[in-house]
Amino acid sequence: MKNSEKPTNLALLGSTGSIGQQALEVVASFPERFRVLALAAGRNRDLLARQVARWQPEMVSFEGPNLPGAFRRASLEEMATHPAVDLVIVATSGKAGLSPTLAALRAGKRVALANKEVLVVAGEIVMGEARPGQLLPIDSEHSAIWQCLAGEEREKIARLVLTASGGPFLRLPLEELGRITPEEALAHPTWRMGKKVSIDAATLMNKGFEAIEAHWLFGIPYEKLKVLVHPQSLVHSLVEFVDGSVKAQIGPADMRLPIQYALAYPERLENHHLPRLDWKRFSSLTFEPPDFERFPCLKLALEAGREGGTLPAVLSAADEVAVELFLSRRISFAAIPRLAEKAMEGHRHIPHPSLEQILEADRSGREKALEAASCTS
Amino acid sequence: MKNSEKPTNLALLGSTGSIGQQALEVVASFPERFRVLALAAGRNRDLLARQVARWQPEMVSFEGPNLPGAFRRASLEEMATHPAVDLVIVATSGKAGLSPTLAALRAGKRVALANKEVLVVAGEIVMGEARPGQLLPIDSEHSAIWQCLAGEEREKIARLVLTASGGPFLRLPLEELGRITPEEALAHPTWRMGKKVSIDAATLMNKGFEAIEAHWLFGIPYEKLKVLVHPQSLVHSLVEFVDGSVKAQIGPADMRLPIQYALAYPERLENHHLPRLDWKRFSSLTFEPPDFERFPCLKLALEAGREGGTLPAVLSAADEVAVELFLSRRISFAAIPRLAEKAMEGHRHIPHPSLEQILEADRSGREKALEAASCTS
Repeated sequence: MKNSEKPTNLALLGSTGSIGQQALEVVASFPERFRVLALAAGRNRDLLARQVARWQPEMVSFEGPNLPGAFRRASLEEMATHPAVDLVIVATSGKAGLSPTLAALRAGKRVALANKEVLVVAGEIVMGEARPGQLLPIDSEHSAIWQCLAGEEREKIARLVLTASGGPFLRLPLEELGRITPEEALAHPTWRMGKKVSIDAATLMNKGFEAIEAHWLFGIPYEKLKVLVHPQSLVHSLVEFVDGSVKAQIGPADMRLPIQYALAYPERLENHHLPRLDWKRFSSLTFEPPDFERFPCLKLALEAGREGGTLPAVLSAADEVAVELFLSRRISFAAIPRLAEKAMEGHRHIPHPSLEQILEADRSGREKALEAASCTS
Repeated sequence: MKNSEKPTNLALLGSTGSIGQQALEVVASFPERFRVLALAAGRNRDLLARQVARWQPEMVSFEGPNLPGAFRRASLEEMATHPAVDLVIVATSGKAGLSPTLAALRAGKRVALANKEVLVVAGEIVMGEARPGQLLPIDSEHSAIWQCLAGEEREKIARLVLTASGGPFLRLPLEELGRITPEEALAHPTWRMGKKVSIDAATLMNKGFEAIEAHWLFGIPYEKLKVLVHPQSLVHSLVEFVDGSVKAQIGPADMRLPIQYALAYPERLENHHLPRLDWKRFSSLTFEPPDFERFPCLKLALEAGREGGTLPAVLSAADEVAVELFLSRRISFAAIPRLAEKAMEGHRHIPHPSLEQILEADRSGREKALEAASCTS
């Protein structure tokens, strides 16, 4: 703890989601080191009200009528650019994080990014605004790569290997994939996550999105990106260097670890509330290439990434629609990749899109997915 | 390749041993980057003569009558301290490396250390002479830890985990350990190494010595050192940090990799002569705690390390005698730990020994081991 220094002032966008809540757990362990200056949430007003009472932020953003408290109601962009804010945690979902991320980067803030879509749909634009070291990943895979790159030169990367748990259906007979219920798909074997991410983890769409993120974050071409299924979720990702040496980052499957790493970077903080690796469980680690027949979403996402332009935005939007339809039991689990593929097929690709063109691609992806769903059902 | 810079001038002590030969293989890949200024070897005159013809060193050290070539015959200390030498590779065996290592450190040279005994017997004295960053490990385990520590603070280490292949007798029924032949013991399943180290790897004495080395090199107390048996020899060691994050260094079991890392540090060099990790083999990694009943040498070495002072020197000397006796078929494989233990039992321990006291402990260890051998046989 650096008591002599002033605390890091945080703006937490998406405070009631899984990452937002875990970020506040980390902050609670270091009351003198971090100060919650701004909280933003969407629908979960009850939880937000409790967070406001506990953390007494100066700025709060929410939907609907006012909440009790001595705060100023502010927009996400206002929080993300406020002079007193040092670090913006973007833990919103969907494309809600895009505009505040860009605003924060332009205002020179450090941004700890947990919102995948920001880089998936607008990687080129976002990276164009980010200085080196300004964008800090929170995803466990990207945090692992970032940690492995400490003290190393990025030009010496030969390959990035993203690990995937394989989700709950890694060994399910293929013919049963159609009958999966939302409850089964939400029961992730190793990670505690939000609903959308849990379904994306079950289809491995998530891993494809993470490959796109890694491509942008670390400036690595897709031919140097590899995905390996690692059901134990202990090795969070690996970096191979040009001399043949490989580094891996390992740890318990707990998001508070990469969150804390991003918040306290470059310092590693001892935190007795976080789990430690159980060396007894560290007995057998397995790795296997992903099965694209079982996980067509991974293939689609890698294709969208390689193609680039507006295609990842189309896929991301179509996937959001498809996952919602699946969670509300209107399409089957197996229909998720079909909807996504249909949306991608119909898309006229734009290579270096503007934000407007990305938002247009997003609308088109949603429409196409809904269209495909009405044909399917 | 930094063509603009002048090459690194090397003194290679122990050039005909396994590490020495592999170091020259690395050097051969980068003729503009490294220059072999001095070569030293013991008994293998034929190989040394070929090395002298190939590398044209200015200084050579050897036993016996003169060899052909336009070089100056020099002592190890002279080579290790010569003004033109930048980096001294200490790949001698036994305590032969101790005096030139100390001389090189005092002369401000960087020392790439492959000679375990140097730190095992005189860790306190050697580390007292070394500035931070002056002593570069070549052992794969210590290189792994060193690589994992790049960009990290040493005070944030929670634990160092040394991996051990377990050698050729990991699964042999205990009652058969007595009948092992030198040929069986020399057939290491994963590493290409010299004879002495191969036997030490089969008894796991080697791993105990490496724990002592790690203790000195990284300034880590023994309670923060852990050994795990990892038969695949792909994960070369791990570092756990105070925040619960663990880093591992992984790669093919090939000593040229850590040798090159030490020689070119802090740069990673692309070298097409070195093997790359075969990701197909990277499918199942296992880790298990070592069995002290099967590997009593590991227990003895850890005890000697914890006790400290002159005891590691006694153990190291006794082990050298015991391994020689085993290789010449005068004692059984199972007698190696018995001789080592006998030597340790009879020793009067000196806490912070001088070099003279260490050499005296070495003599005493040899005597006691021979004595115990004559009683055993």
